[in-house]
Formats: sequence, C-alpha cells, structure tokens
Amino acid sequence: MADAHEQATAFVPGHATGFFSAHPADDPARAGSRGAGVTLTDGVTVTATPADVRHVVLGGRTTHVDAVENVLAALDATVAVTVETDLPVGAGFGVSGAAALGAALAANRVLGLGRSENALVRAAHVAEVEAGTGLGDVVAQARGGVPVRLEPGAPPYGLLDGVPDAARIEYLALGDLSTADVLSGDTDRLSNAGEAALTALRRDPTLSTFMSASRRFARDAELLTPAVEEIIEDVMAAGGEAAMAMLGETVFALGTGLTDAGYDANACRTHPAGATIRTDD
Amino acid sequence: MADAHEQATAFVPGHATGFFSAHPADDPARAGSRGAGVTLTDGVTVTATPADVRHVVLGGRTTHVDAVENVLAALDATVAVTVETDLPVGAGFGVSGAAALGAALAANRVLGLGRSENALVRAAHVAEVEAGTGLGDVVAQARGGVPVRLEPGAPPYGLLDGVPDAARIEYLALGDLSTADVLSGDTDRLSNAGEAALTALRRDPTLSTFMSASRRFARDAELLTPAVEEIIEDVMAAGGEAAMAMLGETVFALGTGLTDAGYDANACRTHPAGATIRTDD
Repeated sequence: MADAHEQATAFVPGHATGFFSAHPADDPARAGSRGAGVTLTDGVTVTATPADVRHVVLGGRTTHVDAVENVLAALDATVAVTVETDLPVGAGFGVSGAAALGAALAANRVLGLGRSENALVRAAHVAEVEAGTGLGDVVAQARGGVPVRLEPGAPPYGLLDGVPDAARIEYLALGDLSTADVLSGDTDRLSNAGEAALTALRRDPTLSTFMSASRRFARDAELLTPAVEEIIEDVMAAGGEAAMAMLGETVFALGTGLTDAGYDANACRTHPAGATIRTDD
Repeated sequence: MADAHEQATAFVPGHATGFFSAHPADDPARAGSRGAGVTLTDGVTVTATPADVRHVVLGGRTTHVDAVENVLAALDATVAVTVETDLPVGAGFGVSGAAALGAALAANRVLGLGRSENALVRAAHVAEVEAGTGLGDVVAQARGGVPVRLEPGAPPYGLLDGVPDAARIEYLALGDLSTADVLSGDTDRLSNAGEAALTALRRDPTLSTFMSASRRFARDAELLTPAVEEIIEDVMAAGGEAAMAMLGETVFALGTGLTDAGYDANACRTHPAGATIRTDD
C-alpha cells in the first residue's frame, strides 16, 4: 500500500495545440484528438491536501473546474486542491487539463491511492473529455516535449510520437475562445484540416513544419481571428515563425519571433518532461 | 526538410533496471523485456559532428560500441560521436543503450535527417537488441521517470507505464556483469521471476513495492552476488530500501539508504524527463 502524505504537489506543463482533428467515441478513454502542439515550461502547479469537503481554489478563490471535480470524484479523492498558474485561462494552453492531471497526481500521492501513471492520466483525460473542455491536452501534458498525437485517447488506447527538438517559445494571449463551443459545433471541416496537417508533420517531423502546418490549419479550419492573423503576419514579416494556439485567441512563436516583430510577449521554453510529482526526499 | 547543424548534443538518463523478463522475437523492434527500473539524473551526454569516417569516442579514446555503430549504420549517418558519462560502464546503468539513443537523437539533428522521436527510439532499440547488450533500457530512457515496461519492444509495439513518484537515488558499483552473457544463457528462471515481480508492482505501483519486488527478483533469478547481498542487507538493517541493478554488480538505494548504512555512495535523483536534445535557441 502506498504511503499517505500531509500534502502533495504536482507540476504540469502548459500545452499549446497547433492543429488537431476531433475523434469522439462512446468510451471517453478512447475519445480524443489527433494533432500536435508544444508543451511549455510555463505550466500549472497543483497542491492537494486531505479535506472534509472536496473543493478547488484557483487564483486564491474557491471555484468550479469541472475537469478537476470530475477526476477527484472518479478517484474517490476527498481533498482540497489549489491550482496556481501564470498562464492565462481559456487562452489555449490546456490549463483545465493540466489542473485535472495535476490534481490526479497530487491526490494519488497525498492519499496513497496506489494508482499507476497511466491510470492517473486516463482518469484525468476522461474527466476532461466529460467536461467538454479538451480532447488531447492531458495526454500531451503527461508526455512533455513536442507531442504528436497519432491516435486519440488515453493509455493504453492513444499513441503518441514527438518532434525531437526543443526551443524558446514566446506567446501573446489576446482573449478567450471557448473550447466547449467549438467542440460542440460542426467539426468536420476542422478535422479534415487537422488530418492534412498531421500528414504533413509525419512526413517531416520538425518544428518548422509543425509551425507551417499549424498556420495552414488555423486558416483552413476558419478559426483565425483578424487580430491573430495580423500578429502572425507581423512575425512572419520579421523573419519568424508563429501560429495560433488552439483553442484561444493566442499567438505563439518560435525563438524571439514576437519580440522581433515589436510585441511585448511572454517567453518560456518547450518543457522536456511530462507532468511530475514534486518531492523533497 | 530539417535543418542541419554544425554539432548536436543529446542527454540520456541512466537506467537501473530492478527486475525484468526477456522476450525474444524475430523482429528486433518487437523483441525486448518487461520489467521496471529507475531513470537517473546521472546519465550520458552524446555529441555528434559530421565526419568523413563514422567513429565513436568514449572517455577520450576512439572505441567500439556495437549499439552506437549499429544505430548510426541504420540511420546512414556518417558522424563522429563523443560519449561522455560519469556512470560506470557495464555496471547496470544502461550506458550502451543511452549512447545509442543519444547518438540517434544527435545524428538526426546534426544531419537534419527529419526522423520522429519514435523512429529514433526504435532505431536505437533495434541497434541495442542486435548488439545483444540490452533489451529494455532504450525505451525506458526515452520515457524518463520510473518506467514500467508492460509490453516489450520499441514504438509502436511496446507499452510503458510508470510509478508516479520521484526520489533521491544512491548507488554503489562494485564491478561488471556481462549483459550479453546472461541474456545468451537460459533465461526461463529469470523471466518467471521477472513476471512475478511485475505482477506485484502492477498491483501496487509504488517505489517501495518496486524495491521489494526487485530484491525478490534478484534472489529468485539467482543473480545476487555475495557482495551485493551483504550491502543490501546492511541498507535494510539501517532502515533503508536497496536492490541490485540489472545487469551489474551494483546496489542502488532510495534516499540516503547507502550513506545511512555507512557506505560512500554516488547520489543522484530519478530523472523527470526522457532523453532530450540540448538546444541554445
């Protein structure tokens, strides 16, 4: 039996998806998306402590995060969860998925639940799919690097690959887009564009092709907003590579792309690891 | 097409296997092992530069490392590879597998080969299996953390899980054991013990059960040497957890287990990430 602890903390990288196709399924563990993105050193820190009543604190206030509440219920984990992040929420960085995955890892440790990593990733993925707030962030955030989602779903169903590279990433978030609204609409056009982008990236799994495939996806899927389009064009004109984070009104760029184009952007890097438990021993 | 570079460097964590079962197959990508181990922040740094003649430098001297030469040949990569590590070679830390995986990642980047991470992991795994020097280190080192190898083989055949924990790890290497000698002998007894250990760990995927299952494996597989057995008993008597690294005459312990028992041990931690390319941009 696993030991219980007084408190446990997990870090989960942010994840900016560049393109995706949606793959619904009756079994939420098999549902998900194909696509690719970058995981980020800017991420989400989740702390769990045993509590009498399950609750979630985000930005210092008790709040509702469906994916987190779903995963704690699935694990039968009565804990207080504190979610801290510098990433903007609703801007395409997978904060809800990260919070769910971090809550699963931290709750498992603090209560000594004795689940494996795959079981915790699966629980968080199912919670996120059932909340309708994401389809592929959790499995990408569990992997780290530059994840390519070849087959949808949680372990053992999903299949991941990666682009073997690392880079500085800049980003600029303009506003929210609702993942739930887009995913509940007609996703055929989007998914066709996502499959075409994945074919291009599998042929040449490099960061440069990831960025160009992502730009084409945003245009073909008709998700590009005028403000995002203008910033991407400015970055390209300055010799950089930029794309739109799905699903947020957010631009991300390789290296110093946004800075070079005169924007005041946040900077981080691709994250080498997936979600991890923090320990002192 | 991927860009080529003047030089590329990859870091691959060490990997101490605690227990395993051997699973030969005609297709080396499907051959491998089930089992579990810890990846280590002490690892192998591999640098590749374009060269007229393929060669490998280890510890400052040109040398032969079959797994590295195999993988470079498979990738048709004519590069000079420099392998640097503080880990002892032949002591059960997967240095040959790490060197092969690091060579694949670095050669891919320096020559702009445009392979995916799975393709590079598969090439390194096949090279290691064909060299006869390992069966499961490469896929574990590509994953990081505390990898549990549920199904043998490289992507997309193998299946991994993980123990969701992290820890300080101490180790003490006494001498060499030849992986090739053990793997070329009768592995039935060893594999039965390995399958029993995996069943125990899947039931309770924690570091504590990993260590106790590993100790039982070493004894039941009759791989325990008298010197290793004595040190493990000393660590246990001092209240710690220790096991034998497969396949080397090496003891590894959780936390300060070896130090507490009075040994002068090396110290590192479980490595949160798998093998990674190092970049400056």
